[in-house]
Amino acid sequence: MAKSTPRYELFYWPSIQGRGEFVRLVFEEAALPYVDVARLPARQGGGVGALMRLLEDDAAGTPPYAPPVLRVGALRIAQTALICQYVAGEGGLLPRAVADRWRAQQLMLTVMDFTLEAHDTHHPIGNSLYYEDQKREARRRAPHYLAERLPKALDYFERALAANGAGRGRVLLGRSLSYADLGLFQLVEGLSYAFPRSVAAVAGDTPRVMALHAAVAERPHIAAYLASPRRLPFNEHGIFRHYPELDVPP
Amino acid sequence: MAKSTPRYELFYWPSIQGRGEFVRLVFEEAALPYVDVARLPARQGGGVGALMRLLEDDAAGTPPYAPPVLRVGALRIAQTALICQYVAGEGGLLPRAVADRWRAQQLMLTVMDFTLEAHDTHHPIGNSLYYEDQKREARRRAPHYLAERLPKALDYFERALAANGAGRGRVLLGRSLSYADLGLFQLVEGLSYAFPRSVAAVAGDTPRVMALHAAVAERPHIAAYLASPRRLPFNEHGIFRHYPELDVPP
Repeated sequence: MAKSTPRYELFYWPSIQGRGEFVRLVFEEAALPYVDVARLPARQGGGVGALMRLLEDDAAGTPPYAPPVLRVGALRIAQTALICQYVAGEGGLLPRAVADRWRAQQLMLTVMDFTLEAHDTHHPIGNSLYYEDQKREARRRAPHYLAERLPKALDYFERALAANGAGRGRVLLGRSLSYADLGLFQLVEGLSYAFPRSVAAVAGDTPRVMALHAAVAERPHIAAYLASPRRLPFNEHGIFRHYPELDVPP
Repeated sequence: MAKSTPRYELFYWPSIQGRGEFVRLVFEEAALPYVDVARLPARQGGGVGALMRLLEDDAAGTPPYAPPVLRVGALRIAQTALICQYVAGEGGLLPRAVADRWRAQQLMLTVMDFTLEAHDTHHPIGNSLYYEDQKREARRRAPHYLAERLPKALDYFERALAANGAGRGRVLLGRSLSYADLGLFQLVEGLSYAFPRSVAAVAGDTPRVMALHAAVAERPHIAAYLASPRRLPFNEHGIFRHYPELDVPP
């Protein structure tokens, strides 16, 4: 008898890609059915209210600090990279070798670090302030980020791809796509949206990263997802925001 | 025949606690022998040179992005929370229940998020600049951090402790100490060093967190470690820095 598939419930802000998008991509590539709870209407148990109730439910054990949160039966897991690792395990997107599984999570965590750095270009002072209230500091932080950190991030993944002889530089680990590759895809998506001029200026130096990004976009499940209404457009409420005044290549 | 213990080599900056300290604490509590490579003299294969060579060695597969890095035979693992999870698995400091193991890593990652936030109070603009070059922005960021984020961090762990009925609020998961508790101990250590006035102002609201911190400090292995020369003092080169002008309780 086949094992029945558990009910996977993702809780995340319903109007942005944000950190939740890294999780959505793993579900989509794995073709695992999931419920994006807060995007359902409130009368179906969805909406931001459902997300807030989940975050505040201390009776269910260790509370999540922030979305995204995955609920699978009695288990709630927060922390984006950890959720991605869990879903990859359910959906066959972990690397085969045990050592590569540690490396995959190392890479996924590094993707999330760079994602936070990109976010902090528009929020260098505080999350509770609007961008407009920290624009002066953002204009000072962004050039440092674009001159040093953005190229360093892409260079790092270029090195990681080159170091994977088994995959001939086409995937980060082993011979097959893993969730770490999906994470890198979304990082490049986000950076390309937020800083198109700056990414264009360095893309030539990181051909493997750019080739991986293009190859992931063409995978059947991902291509179908990107063309579907499930893929929210980027906007200026998420992590990756396009403020042209900040995207000034060094 | 007993399994022989592998050689655990920790690579981290030799003069600061920094992120490496979270790893050191797991080794110390587990009483697992480890080599703190960069703290050895160069003639014994140590020093910062050894750390740099490790970071730049792409022939060994997936490179680390930044220290700390753990090397165990052919495996290199970077990312602090991931290394802590690995060492905890080697040293018997994972929670017993599988679900609690996911929760432990969620908590450990959240400890590291708050650690980074504390760091960014003194580096809001860029890592490559000195504090003195971003002091103005730091003076603007710190009050936001101290009014909103620091209490939110401690409150979160207070909730997590209270939510663990099995541990009667004394450990984060189950009935025994896990590496997540060590992470929380070090976060409180660092915050108390960097922002003594602000932590004192909120400590009364988070009695479980403060009791856990005190209890960890008294554990025999940890107490011996804290009293040894292996425990580096905090200083103004690490993540947690004491700049009195930033520690102004709201």
